[in-house]
Amino acid sequence: MNVLNFFGRRKSAPVARERLQILLAHERSAIGSRPDLLNILREEILAVVGKHVAVDSERVHVKMNRGPAVSTLEIDIEIPNVARAKIAVNM
Amino acid sequence: MNVLNFFGRRKSAPVARERLQILLAHERSAIGSRPDLLNILREEILAVVGKHVAVDSERVHVKMNRGPAVSTLEIDIEIPNVARAKIAVNM
Repeated sequence: MNVLNFFGRRKSAPVARERLQILLAHERSAIGSRPDLLNILREEILAVVGKHVAVDSERVHVKMNRGPAVSTLEIDIEIPNVARAKIAVNM
Repeated sequence: MNVLNFFGRRKSAPVARERLQILLAHERSAIGSRPDLLNILREEILAVVGKHVAVDSERVHVKMNRGPAVSTLEIDIEIPNVARAKIAVNM
């Protein structure tokens, strides 16, 4: 199965865009598991990504789903060209 | 679609286990995108998770796939009961 289908998006143009998609799924048990774990991880994971790629907040889409047993968090980041220039400089 | 199917695993027993699954997909463009981005993010994301949940390295499964245009990284973490005790203490 193509991972991009999972995010329910059509594949972007082959060359033009660079994209990073992150999906977290937290399957909780009844005892003591932390319902807000994904919320906590979200900011810190975005901070980790931001250390390596210039993230434009307007090109970051976050979707959170909280079910009775499983919560999911989808983060979709389009990496702007300037980021790639930044990567080229750091190499 | 149930996210756990995506990870190609049967759903674990409803109550017993708690599990965190993380999927990263890096859709690269031809110009300047960084082929090792997922490898770099892997360690730092595991470190972020480890700050909030006791991670037992024997219960962490990592799978990396590198395609011509898309690389994927799957991290599957079973959260041991002791972790939940830790969460309970921190609450």
